[in-house]
Amino acid sequence: MESAITEPARDAFDRIFHPKSVAVIGVSASGYAFGTGILSSLKAIGFEGRLYAVNPKGGEYNGMKIYTGLSMIPEPIDLAVIAVPAERVPNALEECRRMGVAGVEILSAGFSEIGTEAGARLEQEIRDIASRGIRVVGPNCFGIYCPQSGLTLLPGPDLSRKSGPVGFVSQSGGMAIDFAHIGKWMGVGFSKMVSFGNGADLRETELLEYFGRDPETRVIAMYIEGVKDGKRFFSVLKDVAARKPVIVNKGGLTEAGSRAVESHTASMGGSKRIWEAVLRQAGAVQVGDLWEMAQTCLAFSLLPPRVYEHITVAGGGGALGVSACDQAELYGLNIPQLDPEITKAILEHLPRPGSSAKNPIDAANPFVGPQAYREVFLKAAGDQRVDAQILIQLLYHYKSLSSAMGLSSPKEIAPYRQLADEMKGVVDATGKPLMLVVPNIKQGVESMDIEEMIREARAIFLDRGIPVFDDLGHCLRALGHVSRYYALRRARGL
Amino acid sequence: MESAITEPARDAFDRIFHPKSVAVIGVSASGYAFGTGILSSLKAIGFEGRLYAVNPKGGEYNGMKIYTGLSMIPEPIDLAVIAVPAERVPNALEECRRMGVAGVEILSAGFSEIGTEAGARLEQEIRDIASRGIRVVGPNCFGIYCPQSGLTLLPGPDLSRKSGPVGFVSQSGGMAIDFAHIGKWMGVGFSKMVSFGNGADLRETELLEYFGRDPETRVIAMYIEGVKDGKRFFSVLKDVAARKPVIVNKGGLTEAGSRAVESHTASMGGSKRIWEAVLRQAGAVQVGDLWEMAQTCLAFSLLPPRVYEHITVAGGGGALGVSACDQAELYGLNIPQLDPEITKAILEHLPRPGSSAKNPIDAANPFVGPQAYREVFLKAAGDQRVDAQILIQLLYHYKSLSSAMGLSSPKEIAPYRQLADEMKGVVDATGKPLMLVVPNIKQGVESMDIEEMIREARAIFLDRGIPVFDDLGHCLRALGHVSRYYALRRARGL
Repeated sequence: MESAITEPARDAFDRIFHPKSVAVIGVSASGYAFGTGILSSLKAIGFEGRLYAVNPKGGEYNGMKIYTGLSMIPEPIDLAVIAVPAERVPNALEECRRMGVAGVEILSAGFSEIGTEAGARLEQEIRDIASRGIRVVGPNCFGIYCPQSGLTLLPGPDLSRKSGPVGFVSQSGGMAIDFAHIGKWMGVGFSKMVSFGNGADLRETELLEYFGRDPETRVIAMYIEGVKDGKRFFSVLKDVAARKPVIVNKGGLTEAGSRAVESHTASMGGSKRIWEAVLRQAGAVQVGDLWEMAQTCLAFSLLPPRVYEHITVAGGGGALGVSACDQAELYGLNIPQLDPEITKAILEHLPRPGSSAKNPIDAANPFVGPQAYREVFLKAAGDQRVDAQILIQLLYHYKSLSSAMGLSSPKEIAPYRQLADEMKGVVDATGKPLMLVVPNIKQGVESMDIEEMIREARAIFLDRGIPVFDDLGHCLRALGHVSRYYALRRARGL
Repeated sequence: MESAITEPARDAFDRIFHPKSVAVIGVSASGYAFGTGILSSLKAIGFEGRLYAVNPKGGEYNGMKIYTGLSMIPEPIDLAVIAVPAERVPNALEECRRMGVAGVEILSAGFSEIGTEAGARLEQEIRDIASRGIRVVGPNCFGIYCPQSGLTLLPGPDLSRKSGPVGFVSQSGGMAIDFAHIGKWMGVGFSKMVSFGNGADLRETELLEYFGRDPETRVIAMYIEGVKDGKRFFSVLKDVAARKPVIVNKGGLTEAGSRAVESHTASMGGSKRIWEAVLRQAGAVQVGDLWEMAQTCLAFSLLPPRVYEHITVAGGGGALGVSACDQAELYGLNIPQLDPEITKAILEHLPRPGSSAKNPIDAANPFVGPQAYREVFLKAAGDQRVDAQILIQLLYHYKSLSSAMGLSSPKEIAPYRQLADEMKGVVDATGKPLMLVVPNIKQGVESMDIEEMIREARAIFLDRGIPVFDDLGHCLRALGHVSRYYALRRARGL
């Protein structure tokens, strides 16, 4: 057996994230149970290894044999999913340990988070068993998502199977599943995601260390409510952030929020000022919410790793200049006036009168075509200072135009596919990244066709490696994060 | 003639915003022209008065006679739209003045904004003529939008005809047309909107004064790049803000942004700190961009005018607590732990185990029904401290459920209509406003049905007077603005 030969060389993390065999403990032959749910999800998403169902009562679920115990399964198990009532978790975990399971995820709730002595005691039992040689994710978590192996979060039957560079460590299961869904259409791909819940064993620091050395992970994102050992966390964070961007969303920063966090230790409380200072010193990237985290991960995933100082912003048919400049400065970016020769060359490709090409480059109308924008960006990139370029495309205008032309859909005339090809060509030719911003001011029930067009355009640009945002501010904020991160590394000689 | 009797009593502003007759100067018998565009838009939107087209060449446009001059029109004109090349604008304006036109909007560009001496001189001519007895909006603007009379911005054939309490004064035409479109689906109704462009005559201060006394305007919004007479503006702002909320978005607050603003006077430059202090002292509400402005106007439009201190936040199936508390505190709001008796009573209506009802009220799953939420909010309102309530409804979960049930659309089972009725009932019964938050993490091409459902739900809740937001943070921020505004008025004894 090939697996018997390679098994010994695989470490626990490898067996957990890329298991050849998974046992789900707590699958019910009849009626709904969390265990049954996660088993169905693993099947639905197409888990690559072998799946086993376990329940002391035995029986069958959907044509699948339910084993009465781990020892009845005819092969070693890499990862077990435990989804039995809290009081039975320690026994199940101990059996996993005895059978040589590398790790478990405990989806069950009813531990320290319910604030009872019994709950705390059960969690201590988990910790004790883990310390004797098995890794635990949870309890009270949504588990592990790994697109490559086909592991999925609870409920998660419809998450993407496309891997990407982002590793996400989350204390909150809800945040994890939300980010997985947002990433799917926003273009953020994940190497692995771990929702660790109460974190009885594996938690922020060790997972951060793991992602720091994991070759599949290039960008690390974290949602943290409280850390267990602040000093060690800070030291690991500083070490990892010197090599890979670490984007942190800290929940419970306000007094009210930190009261809402069921703090596990008082070592690093909720002081906003302390946290911000600590994260800054460690060289981490701080974000305020899940949306900013997703946008920032998108930028880190798709943009070349470097400092960005000077950018161009081009687009047509909307208010550009003032707001673009205001927001760029806010995020530490610069929209320099282009060289007059370049401005002149750009203007030749834009409608006159009405266009202006000093930068921001304002096209007089929203129907400037892909070839014209190709020339605009090629010429603008000729200014040596320009590090990155942004196109604001107001696709919704094509609806009015298509209606005026008697067409049934704006998709018939909006040239976003050609535009994506041209923009990809510009990036390839100049080596300077391009970002697309597609705002939508028409979000009424009668404008579903605009929304559909924008979503298609997003997918097409993402296919060509061009990040897409729905707001210029979001785009500049994300680019600013990337730039500041690499500026700090440069300043520290890293 | 009735109009002959009532005319003398109408002031210039009334004749401008509610014109019985409009002349569009610059309508071309053939080919496209801005004048032709605005004429078509006025027809499309259903302008209530009589429309006349003017062009010295005469002719006919779409079966409509084109008059060769204003004097050929058989009745007095209240409002004229001037859309001729810049150099012909002064003559056209002078003819309007001689013919007793109350006001004009000059859509033409090519004045001070192009930075030439000729442009500046033409604009001075406009100012001179205006000072002899005619009011001017523009030049270089998108004009006036008044849903009640059917005046519309350029291009604007598809703006809403539903009036509302918000008056918007905007230096930027793009900002005006964008806000008009956003307001249409977000539920912000307008009394009037004026895009004043270069502001040769009417501009921020006088328009603010007008909206301050206009009984059709209850909430005032402004987009300002630079003001002409800072001292007078500040004094009028202070006076008006003492009676009506004035929401201000100042463009060009950063150094880069203020360079991008073609400042009309240096009297009040772009210093962020000065502007923020001045606006705060005047009691205005400061917002950072158009989206925040729209959300804030929505809250001011639909919520009872008062201070909000304590709120409840309820919802199910997502990460609630920590983030809700963090954000509430950020915006000066409080999510108090409810009275234990009330918590107990609420819990009886939520799924057990898993729900928590201390506030935030976290339902264990997203499928808690309208009747249950009715009871939850009725009971929570029993806590005397509660000023307002927020429901977070994760409608996208109904897609997975409908798929699992073999249904074709989530709309078949998602009870948002009944929910809207129940929530309206709660508001009526308790006198405490409710807000709805409908986040959407599934925005892929394959999830158009979720988007459609959410848009329908938004419209249904808005019909019942309940504001809808797509993000809890946006909702809390808008509520915080309302609360702080009335707190300041209270503190100042206004």
